[in-house]
Amino acid sequence: MTDEGSRADTGADSTEERQIGLSDAFIREIRDLLSENYTDRIQELCRDLPAADAADLLAKTGAEERERLVDILGDDLDPETFLYLDREVLNGLLQHMAGAHIASIVNALDSDDAITLINDLGEERRGEIMRHLSRKVRAAVEEGLNYPENSAGRMMQREFVAIPQFWTVGKTVDYMRAAAESLPEKFHDIFIVDPMHRFAGAVTLSRLLCARRETKVDVLLQEEHVAVPATMDREQVAHLFRRKDLLSAPVVDEKERLIGVITVDDVVDVIDAEAEEDFLKLGGVGGSDVFRPLIPTARARFWWLAINLLTAFAATFVISQFEHTIEKTVALAALMPIVASMGGNAGTQTLAVAVRALATRELTSANAWRLTFKELAVGAINGVLFGILMTGIIAAWYKDLRLAGIMAAAMVFNLVAAGFFGALIPIWLARLKFDPADSAAVFLTTVTDVIGFLAFLGLASWFLV
Amino acid sequence: MTDEGSRADTGADSTEERQIGLSDAFIREIRDLLSENYTDRIQELCRDLPAADAADLLAKTGAEERERLVDILGDDLDPETFLYLDREVLNGLLQHMAGAHIASIVNALDSDDAITLINDLGEERRGEIMRHLSRKVRAAVEEGLNYPENSAGRMMQREFVAIPQFWTVGKTVDYMRAAAESLPEKFHDIFIVDPMHRFAGAVTLSRLLCARRETKVDVLLQEEHVAVPATMDREQVAHLFRRKDLLSAPVVDEKERLIGVITVDDVVDVIDAEAEEDFLKLGGVGGSDVFRPLIPTARARFWWLAINLLTAFAATFVISQFEHTIEKTVALAALMPIVASMGGNAGTQTLAVAVRALATRELTSANAWRLTFKELAVGAINGVLFGILMTGIIAAWYKDLRLAGIMAAAMVFNLVAAGFFGALIPIWLARLKFDPADSAAVFLTTVTDVIGFLAFLGLASWFLV
Repeated sequence: MTDEGSRADTGADSTEERQIGLSDAFIREIRDLLSENYTDRIQELCRDLPAADAADLLAKTGAEERERLVDILGDDLDPETFLYLDREVLNGLLQHMAGAHIASIVNALDSDDAITLINDLGEERRGEIMRHLSRKVRAAVEEGLNYPENSAGRMMQREFVAIPQFWTVGKTVDYMRAAAESLPEKFHDIFIVDPMHRFAGAVTLSRLLCARRETKVDVLLQEEHVAVPATMDREQVAHLFRRKDLLSAPVVDEKERLIGVITVDDVVDVIDAEAEEDFLKLGGVGGSDVFRPLIPTARARFWWLAINLLTAFAATFVISQFEHTIEKTVALAALMPIVASMGGNAGTQTLAVAVRALATRELTSANAWRLTFKELAVGAINGVLFGILMTGIIAAWYKDLRLAGIMAAAMVFNLVAAGFFGALIPIWLARLKFDPADSAAVFLTTVTDVIGFLAFLGLASWFLV
Repeated sequence: MTDEGSRADTGADSTEERQIGLSDAFIREIRDLLSENYTDRIQELCRDLPAADAADLLAKTGAEERERLVDILGDDLDPETFLYLDREVLNGLLQHMAGAHIASIVNALDSDDAITLINDLGEERRGEIMRHLSRKVRAAVEEGLNYPENSAGRMMQREFVAIPQFWTVGKTVDYMRAAAESLPEKFHDIFIVDPMHRFAGAVTLSRLLCARRETKVDVLLQEEHVAVPATMDREQVAHLFRRKDLLSAPVVDEKERLIGVITVDDVVDVIDAEAEEDFLKLGGVGGSDVFRPLIPTARARFWWLAINLLTAFAATFVISQFEHTIEKTVALAALMPIVASMGGNAGTQTLAVAVRALATRELTSANAWRLTFKELAVGAINGVLFGILMTGIIAAWYKDLRLAGIMAAAMVFNLVAAGFFGALIPIWLARLKFDPADSAAVFLTTVTDVIGFLAFLGLASWFLV
């Protein structure tokens, strides 16, 4: 695959950009060629695209263009292209493609990637593809599908290099040269197994290369390699890689037998996926829907908004209890959103910090109370500061000192509550084994809305009327 | 370092947990020992802690305890411990530690890590430490500090293995065995350079190991290795590693000379840092302040809230223009937050998807308009659905069909605006080279608040009064 050739035509971008992705100009050119049906020229331009670039091209064309491109390019597409595709785009394409074509792609992939590819397909369609697979790949895929989704067993490759404990460096190197054809294309560590095929340790290639031929491999073992049970959650796997700066980790079954390997590039994918999930959940979306069709997108968003509507009604109910007070001092109606909005924002600040710290395990029961009280204090400090600020503004604007004092008191109340609950809600949810990123924001804004309106309007009905 | 010994005492956790982090019980035990001044026992328990665990322990104790622990453990602490610390915690500790102690840690680290460690220190303090460094480390640190923050030059290590183009596999392996002492502890790729020391290619170790001794290294070159200019932004570097599944990448100066290497573990750190930054910005916080002291935390949060206050006043101003209308139909005051809240939430959904897609480059000018119109359509669909829903609810609750109709119309208006501006604002910001994660949320909620209140109260003043 040449990286530059296909892009010489496009010109426009800076050097740095050119190295990293397809230019929009190139994508436009292909779309133009598609609309004019110049299939030969498209094949010529796209034949040697690296997988990531080909995936870019497919993602950024419309659904119909995408299917036509896959038909035109056929086997010229690097099988790994499909691994770089967004789930929505991938599944859309798989529906369009023939079972035999998908099977030829699956046959060319590592076992972990093969599973990723057909993961979302229905039972029937998957069976159709399975029939076209080579026996070896089929066995690997079937076995992998037995592990729970998001487990180490799903992430692992079955292709790895394992040698007995008693070998020397020289014997190992000779073996690898002789067996080069049957070894994985790339590997980072060599695993040592005992006679029962149980994992006994790992040696990084650089260490092996720098050792003398007569050295026994088991003196080179590195202690940071711990075996990962096939059932371990992928988030935990990522955490382990981070903490130990691993390149690869052995995966073992319940009898400690070595059954696969997880490599750092798959871990990077997991880290990206988990970060994306948390980010989008904080924004009130279940997952990325950039490439999802209109109607399914609207439907998924609808449910999140429906939950928000319920919480909005809680605020409306509180306000409606004070309609009498608002009728008398209508300025309250204009000012009350300020209290709620400041509380919601301050709470979200705390929430974001706490959710992230829970995910990175910087926040555990060891420091949960310390954080909660700190957040309460931060709320109190900023509550007082904004209270003073608002007193000045309202006294100047409405010439009403009592109104100004009520606003200040409500601000302090709500920011203290925001800090306290902003920390407490995610910590509680995590302790109850819920995902705090999932639902914390909804609880929190309900709390800050209700407390904000209640404090402001309650104080007003007491002191103003 | 043994991983299990120090934790045998703590028991409680499950096997999986034990492999990955320190137990809270262990942390509590150390804190108890600290308060009773059993320093010998602390040294005994903590001497062999892996770096990531020791960092955990330091992070989860109070500031004073933390300083005492560093004093008690001294050189028993793995120098890498300090690399795992949160920036706030690290800088607090560095202030407390003697220059000579810091220098001894810096001397033991790779050059990229050394720079990370002393990055935030003031000029004077940094000078004090520099005087204690070995000549080689000092030169590397000084050179690294010349590159812009967040550039490849800051991330790279200066320790790498480079060989001339004309060598054979055999000669390379012999050289590595002979030079083992002076080579980096771990490396993943060997770089090939021309006589001018310009980067000419890279060979992955597994490929080298599987090749015959007489093979020339330059036939093993892998084309996915592209040289990274030292000035490239770290986010771009991460993107490159992802797209090409790299383990390491050569860094070159402006004359294409090989000057360093970036390894995948550093890239994982960058990916984590960038994800954290985006997540926290969406929550309205500049960066993680879990470990930041109270007053600086409150101060940083204050400024984000102050900006929010300005936007809240925009909403208040709109509402105050309709006080007359609200006085007559006070139910409007209770209902109007629903319109604003639904708009804000729908807009944030779109915003989150767009910001994330911009960061992953799934969204570029090639599909910006397609996404914007899709989001507008999603807003229209959900606007109509929630409009119908609200019509029913309000007609039942307030027995007022006109009010119900006004609410429905305002809902459609605001959700369409939310979808449109939720996509457009981050796309615009990115095009103007701003970070969309930074400021998009503030613009957006101002827009949805103002449009929401304006539509609802404006229609009400027209049709109800």
